Amino acid sequence: MEASFRRRLSKVVGNISDICRRGLFRVLSFGPIPQHIAFIMDGNRRFARYRNMKQGSGHQVGFLALMSILRYCYELGVKYVTIYAFSIDNFKRRPEEVQVVMDLMLEKIEGLLNEGSIVKEYGLKVNFLGNLELLPTRVKRAAEKVMAATEGNSKAILSICVAYTSTDEIVHAVQESYKEKLSKISLTSLDKCDSEQSIITLPDLEKHMYTIGCPDPEILVRTSGETRLSNFLLWQTTFCFLLSPNCLWPEISLKHLVWAILEYQHVQPYLDRKRRAMLGTP
Amino acid sequence: MEASFRRRLSKVVGNISDICRRGLFRVLSFGPIPQHIAFIMDGNRRFARYRNMKQGSGHQVGFLALMSILRYCYELGVKYVTIYAFSIDNFKRRPEEVQVVMDLMLEKIEGLLNEGSIVKEYGLKVNFLGNLELLPTRVKRAAEKVMAATEGNSKAILSICVAYTSTDEIVHAVQESYKEKLSKISLTSLDKCDSEQSIITLPDLEKHMYTIGCPDPEILVRTSGETRLSNFLLWQTTFCFLLSPNCLWPEISLKHLVWAILEYQHVQPYLDRKRRAMLGTP
Repeated sequence: MEASFRRRLSKVVGNISDICRRGLFRVLSFGPIPQHIAFIMDGNRRFARYRNMKQGSGHQVGFLALMSILRYCYELGVKYVTIYAFSIDNFKRRPEEVQVVMDLMLEKIEGLLNEGSIVKEYGLKVNFLGNLELLPTRVKRAAEKVMAATEGNSKAILSICVAYTSTDEIVHAVQESYKEKLSKISLTSLDKCDSEQSIITLPDLEKHMYTIGCPDPEILVRTSGETRLSNFLLWQTTFCFLLSPNCLWPEISLKHLVWAILEYQHVQPYLDRKRRAMLGTP
Repeated sequence: MEASFRRRLSKVVGNISDICRRGLFRVLSFGPIPQHIAFIMDGNRRFARYRNMKQGSGHQVGFLALMSILRYCYELGVKYVTIYAFSIDNFKRRPEEVQVVMDLMLEKIEGLLNEGSIVKEYGLKVNFLGNLELLPTRVKRAAEKVMAATEGNSKAILSICVAYTSTDEIVHAVQESYKEKLSKISLTSLDKCDSEQSIITLPDLEKHMYTIGCPDPEILVRTSGETRLSNFLLWQTTFCFLLSPNCLWPEISLKHLVWAILEYQHVQPYLDRKRRAMLGTP
């Protein structure tokens, strides 16, 4: 009887909280809502260390925090969310530590196609951005399977940067552009290689960025109070509003997201004027 | 008599202030001092607007603030200072506004070679980084003259980014690498264009960055409380500590610099561990 009462009470509290959140989001959406938010999920390991939790537990809690934040973002009408899940540089950590994260990643990626997952709930298209060749084969295959299965979705986009650094993305774009250009140069015209057609241009590079088709993020949140970009979306964050809440990633919550949106709404008219002035658009 | 007394008093106060500053710097230098600090000098125009000053006056005061900050940096033992003086995007501002800044820039660049200038005082090597072809001819020539005249100096380096954006720097590096690679490919080996030698690599790009020879900055200060990088040194700021003091650029002072150094010294051991872990060095 008591257990049943508790369940009902918990459901009622849950419903009230949902209604309040939706009301809050309705109020927020009177102001501009960003199209794209990016997150550097910093502090999972420190969260576990401060609490004497075992290896990988910080990432487990961090995953739950991520699911909540994604739900809030999509409910709020943010169409694109990009997260920095694993950097190429992270492969230099201790092998057993990398293994724990890869195992967790495999489990969570495979879970994305389950009934009741966030992908099904919001009709997400999932992109994995990075040099996927560097991932263990099973993780790579799971990622490719999710991308193929969600390719047709367009309601909201989740981009997961794994085995990613911005430097690698730029070098990759350069190499792809280079190959494309070379393939267009005929043997006889090689001596005219400095002609306009054969120069690699800005649009060439942009066409080959992993993030092609995705607008630049308006907000970049890096937890742990750190302001470094750590080689994440350097190319895409020129006009981006950077925020560094003091919490560790597993501690991020609705209030941090609401605060980020409010701060963004405060500076957005100014940022927008700047962007238009810089891009020379009216 | 009174004027002479005032002059002497002012000299005494100046001397005491110099002694205090040197003492402070001596204390600071017990901790790690960054090799390289970069500044985004934001807020000159707002400074003038808030005070109803005429066009260009904000930049004039901003120049004086820059001279003080440069002196403090070099006294403190910071070898490299890089400043964002004029972005390529700034050319899209109103023509008369661009003209005022260019005139001021010409006057200040020409002044760099005068006796008593900061260049002579600290034996500076001055670099102008950016697409100098976009500058008015007189400004470009003045910049080239200063670079040639200070080429032999090595005590301290001042890099001035004019007609600069990071995107342009990267595209420039790509084009230079591309030209270099193409020149090495013989007609007969074009069909082997995907061989290792003919791929543009990370070291190729780095070799052609404007900042070659200069270590990445450890601290990037952007005034006006803004955290955007505005297309400045994106490639070079991966491990950089970003600081956004709330003052406008002309208001920047010794206290902001001291605060930046103290904050950097606080996080430096952590940043250094991160950098070493990322780069895989012991």
